[in-house]
Amino acid sequence: MEQHITAPKMQQDLDARIREKIDLKTKPTGALGLLEELAYQIASVQNTLNTNLVAPHIIVFAASHGIAASGVSAYPTEVTAQMVLNFLNGGAAINAFTRQHQIELTVVDAGVDYEFPNSEKLLDRKIGFGTKNFLETTAMTADECLRCLEEGAELVKSVSETGCNVIGFGEMGIGNTSSAAMIMSRLLGLPLADCVGIGTGLDDAGLDRKLSLLSQAAELHKDVGNDPLQVLQTFGGFEIAMMCGAMLEAAARQMIVLVDGFIASSAYLAALKMNHRVRQNAVFCHQSEEKGHRILLETLNVKPILHLGMRLGEGTGCAVAYPILQSAVAFLNEMASFESAGISGKPAL
Amino acid sequence: MEQHITAPKMQQDLDARIREKIDLKTKPTGALGLLEELAYQIASVQNTLNTNLVAPHIIVFAASHGIAASGVSAYPTEVTAQMVLNFLNGGAAINAFTRQHQIELTVVDAGVDYEFPNSEKLLDRKIGFGTKNFLETTAMTADECLRCLEEGAELVKSVSETGCNVIGFGEMGIGNTSSAAMIMSRLLGLPLADCVGIGTGLDDAGLDRKLSLLSQAAELHKDVGNDPLQVLQTFGGFEIAMMCGAMLEAAARQMIVLVDGFIASSAYLAALKMNHRVRQNAVFCHQSEEKGHRILLETLNVKPILHLGMRLGEGTGCAVAYPILQSAVAFLNEMASFESAGISGKPAL
Repeated sequence: MEQHITAPKMQQDLDARIREKIDLKTKPTGALGLLEELAYQIASVQNTLNTNLVAPHIIVFAASHGIAASGVSAYPTEVTAQMVLNFLNGGAAINAFTRQHQIELTVVDAGVDYEFPNSEKLLDRKIGFGTKNFLETTAMTADECLRCLEEGAELVKSVSETGCNVIGFGEMGIGNTSSAAMIMSRLLGLPLADCVGIGTGLDDAGLDRKLSLLSQAAELHKDVGNDPLQVLQTFGGFEIAMMCGAMLEAAARQMIVLVDGFIASSAYLAALKMNHRVRQNAVFCHQSEEKGHRILLETLNVKPILHLGMRLGEGTGCAVAYPILQSAVAFLNEMASFESAGISGKPAL
Repeated sequence: MEQHITAPKMQQDLDARIREKIDLKTKPTGALGLLEELAYQIASVQNTLNTNLVAPHIIVFAASHGIAASGVSAYPTEVTAQMVLNFLNGGAAINAFTRQHQIELTVVDAGVDYEFPNSEKLLDRKIGFGTKNFLETTAMTADECLRCLEEGAELVKSVSETGCNVIGFGEMGIGNTSSAAMIMSRLLGLPLADCVGIGTGLDDAGLDRKLSLLSQAAELHKDVGNDPLQVLQTFGGFEIAMMCGAMLEAAARQMIVLVDGFIASSAYLAALKMNHRVRQNAVFCHQSEEKGHRILLETLNVKPILHLGMRLGEGTGCAVAYPILQSAVAFLNEMASFESAGISGKPAL
């Protein structure tokens, strides 16, 4: 993957000029809150005072999970394939929201336990017919995990070549809050109880059962440690590992990386442990209702744009937050300065 | 003002059908969080299962405040007129955000202390050249206050006749967080210290001074009580009273009413005390950083869509939140149901 090298001194100069441009806009200093932080981040990543967001794209990765057979989800595992067909037919939430904002949507079969008919709308990157159950063995082989990372990177490379400079990632995979919880627990060194939530809607008994099963898995794989590649291989899923590779490639290409909810954040965690530079490109779009997500974001000390109480995945948080990024770019590019508008500033004290 | 009467039984039936439509979408129950609540509210207000948002409009009311002469703001009072000219030239934040979302913008001189040149872009509804200083007397006469309410209602009537069914209100008026704090304190029966904040950016000493001055004003007008009309007349400003009349008319016309930040919420409070039915039409767009706003929203037990840390007014919260309302409408109108998409539901327990 490429690394974009910027001379530290030049970058510091530019960063100061971005701050100045923001502060001279016709508003009290800081009065646009998080929009100012987003504008600063986007301009800094793009290395310019004149930002733009071009050809926005969301890739949704779908995969089946061996762990789902153990009853960790409120929904049956076949829903993963059914929802992929729903994406292809344009009937899911992510279809509505990407249409709304003219975001290109790509759906990828990363490893669903289903033979899809050929479709131009579905990219076949199937690593296998679902991961193995990590209650019994590792979710995937080392080779499968590396293939996921490579396929994710390749997909982003193709998207980047369309001119896209802002990309979000979504997922569909019944059982994948279990993988995400294991990854979060292992990579952040947090107790599983902080990482495990109700997913698509478990009741109290279901949640207890999920926590108990995942505790068994943690015990089974206690020797795995916290190497991000090993953790991904052990706990899956194909869609999470592919998303991790995609995020790394997007950051290397100086794209803005839209991070969705809990599952996407677990992929981001793995990417961050592999290359900390992904941090500067990442925008956290929405804090999910899934319990572990708030703790994950707080632990990383990052501020999500939205808190809408959603818990759906699919990249929906990225799509719904996207116009807020556009607002950040709009004020930076379009607002007058105090001087150009002839407005009295705040008197010096 | 008109009252739209709906038979309670028919409304209950419709509300149940809206809930059912939302719950049958291809997502776990409640997984779209606040978007589901917004979709429900919009459909209920519009009295239909097939919602739409038509010809969105924001009216920004500007006025000068006598209290500003006492030094309650970080900015000089002439900034009010300068910012109005900035609105007309398209250089303010609200211009950028309304352009972004194709929201029609109307700027109204409700009573700025400045003779503006004639402009097609500025509606002259000047009640006077600023309110009087409420540290000395009432901000306006009873007649002026009533004229504000009527002008606000008339403006909304005109906008409604363009087909608009969703309207937001913004304001510009150096000194108006002081009016808003007085209104909030009086109408909610809360101590001033809970209602007074830094506005456009006072330092600690400035904030102490503002609180001290407003405490004097509260003492001077202690006999005014909590009648909303009397409170508006006493503490102003023209833009707040006009916004109050506008909100009442918009609700009476079954429009969705977008409530912006702290000042707009003080106008909403007065409107609510005049007619509690405004509640069902009101969407709280953004929780401002201004200290009193969080307390105001919590006291009313309402959930704002956004928490972006903005504190600018102008209707910017309404404009930036508008695409979230559009997302709510989009999922309700466009998503497939479990049945139409052939997806297995959550098994009954």
